[in-house]
Amino acid sequence: MAKGNAPSRAVAIDLGGTRFRVAVGTDEGLLEWRVSRATEVEQGRGAVLERIFATVDEALATVSNRATIQGIGIGAPGPLDPWTGVVFNPPNLPGWDDTPLKVLFESRFGLRTTVNNDANLAAVGEHRYGAGRGFAHLVYVTVSTGIGGGVIVDNQLLLGQCGFAGEVGHMTIDMDGPPCPCGNVGCLETLASGTAIARQARQFVAAGAETSLAQLSLQEITGKSVSQAADEGDALARRILHEAGVALGVGMVNISHLFNPQLVILGGGVSNSGEVLWEPMRQTLRTRALTACQRGLEIVPAALGDDAGIFGALATVIPT
Amino acid sequence: MAKGNAPSRAVAIDLGGTRFRVAVGTDEGLLEWRVSRATEVEQGRGAVLERIFATVDEALATVSNRATIQGIGIGAPGPLDPWTGVVFNPPNLPGWDDTPLKVLFESRFGLRTTVNNDANLAAVGEHRYGAGRGFAHLVYVTVSTGIGGGVIVDNQLLLGQCGFAGEVGHMTIDMDGPPCPCGNVGCLETLASGTAIARQARQFVAAGAETSLAQLSLQEITGKSVSQAADEGDALARRILHEAGVALGVGMVNISHLFNPQLVILGGGVSNSGEVLWEPMRQTLRTRALTACQRGLEIVPAALGDDAGIFGALATVIPT
Repeated sequence: MAKGNAPSRAVAIDLGGTRFRVAVGTDEGLLEWRVSRATEVEQGRGAVLERIFATVDEALATVSNRATIQGIGIGAPGPLDPWTGVVFNPPNLPGWDDTPLKVLFESRFGLRTTVNNDANLAAVGEHRYGAGRGFAHLVYVTVSTGIGGGVIVDNQLLLGQCGFAGEVGHMTIDMDGPPCPCGNVGCLETLASGTAIARQARQFVAAGAETSLAQLSLQEITGKSVSQAADEGDALARRILHEAGVALGVGMVNISHLFNPQLVILGGGVSNSGEVLWEPMRQTLRTRALTACQRGLEIVPAALGDDAGIFGALATVIPT
Repeated sequence: MAKGNAPSRAVAIDLGGTRFRVAVGTDEGLLEWRVSRATEVEQGRGAVLERIFATVDEALATVSNRATIQGIGIGAPGPLDPWTGVVFNPPNLPGWDDTPLKVLFESRFGLRTTVNNDANLAAVGEHRYGAGRGFAHLVYVTVSTGIGGGVIVDNQLLLGQCGFAGEVGHMTIDMDGPPCPCGNVGCLETLASGTAIARQARQFVAAGAETSLAQLSLQEITGKSVSQAADEGDALARRILHEAGVALGVGMVNISHLFNPQLVILGGGVSNSGEVLWEPMRQTLRTRALTACQRGLEIVPAALGDDAGIFGALATVIPT
């Protein structure tokens, strides 16, 4: 540790339904310590919290100068209240209704704690430490099982009245489209998420379409297997990813018209599908968006992968 | 004028393709003087500007204490640059390409001048002086010939990187929908604007549908005549307005998911169509939007009518 010029540090927690991750990071974005553990939701909230607390104790024990620790940043599945730090009723954490995470961590550790929705935090992470460094206006979109996101306006996370802004996956782009589990129809998520891609592939396979995916059982067909089949030249898989790319492009059109950002950062597993997805997305943006709104706008891949949320948690605790 | 406690004043200009309006207003939103004149675009930019300059001279002559005048606020058709005050190529002002309005007015009058897009200014006007007073997060939507809007985030107008944010009329809600003059397809504007309502009515009449609108020539059918026919109970007119209301409701769903505002303010001529439009709009929002995002959200009618832009121009010059 540099004498007289000790870095600021924070403990960052990414709490997911399958795994939780804890890290110690510096203001410069150096992760000095990190661990990833199974959440084991089935053990119940109390037991999970105790294991996270114990992991934070481990994390704190690695820091010799405790005075450098500015606080704890937590990313959790929404919906949640980023001001009070209460998690409402996250579908990925059954039984966690109305959990006051901020208060629980502050009273246990005596450290200021921030709690934010994980997709929003990933936006903050990419803005501070990743693909969005230096851009004041950006939108982050993550396409995996679902589609989530976060919006940075004038270098600030857009929260809206209750902290629910930036739900880009649930923007309607086809008002008569397929139903979404959220209750809406034709959400971007129903047309371009990994789940949507897999659903379409299963429908084609079930209908007897000619495709290498037919070798798999319907349950084995995932967004990833469609992406692999496309890589290997399967025409149906390529067509499905092309359509998902067009839908994402329509999402980008709306993002450009509503937020007029400099940058859209695309992350999540599906975003790794390559040009078969990216080309129709970019082409749709180019041909459909208002010229004024696409001027200076770039779509770039996310830089931080699964760590974006951890870096965002750091950023919410350590001011620039 | 109150001695020793003179109000702040500004000259507000609303520059439209058909009429321009000039007013003198106070920081409290009192319009002390106002006039509306034909723009007469066909006379050319130089002549129109000279007439506006002369009208501003008239306006200034009505103020005995010139020191109370903080500046000139201009609302103009976009696209424009709100920082440099240059109007690019407004379709409503042919021949006005790259007009440096801010510089022209500042050098002519020696008064600080702001230039903003008219729909954005209407949002600012409703926020400061109208239906949005006291709300930090709101979206203003105006539905007339086209659909425009503006977004207030944390009491600030959302501009984005180039000042083009808030183009709510060009959000895609039907990715395979009808073409929009903007180059996109299925924009909210193609489904719910006065132009879209009239277009649909004409199509039905041309196809021989039974409706009181059939008494009009196709050219006589406007958004207003459809609204009147609906008022008088015409079933087809009511159905067209119902569908426009559903489309507006889908727009509200997207606004609630992306901006999570407390308030949406609906203005413009079409918004006066009453419950036949408002009921399906509210119903669509209720049934389709994420519960979290519609909590605390209200849709209310605009309060300032055609003056919203004038009030917005005032607000950009006179700080709160």
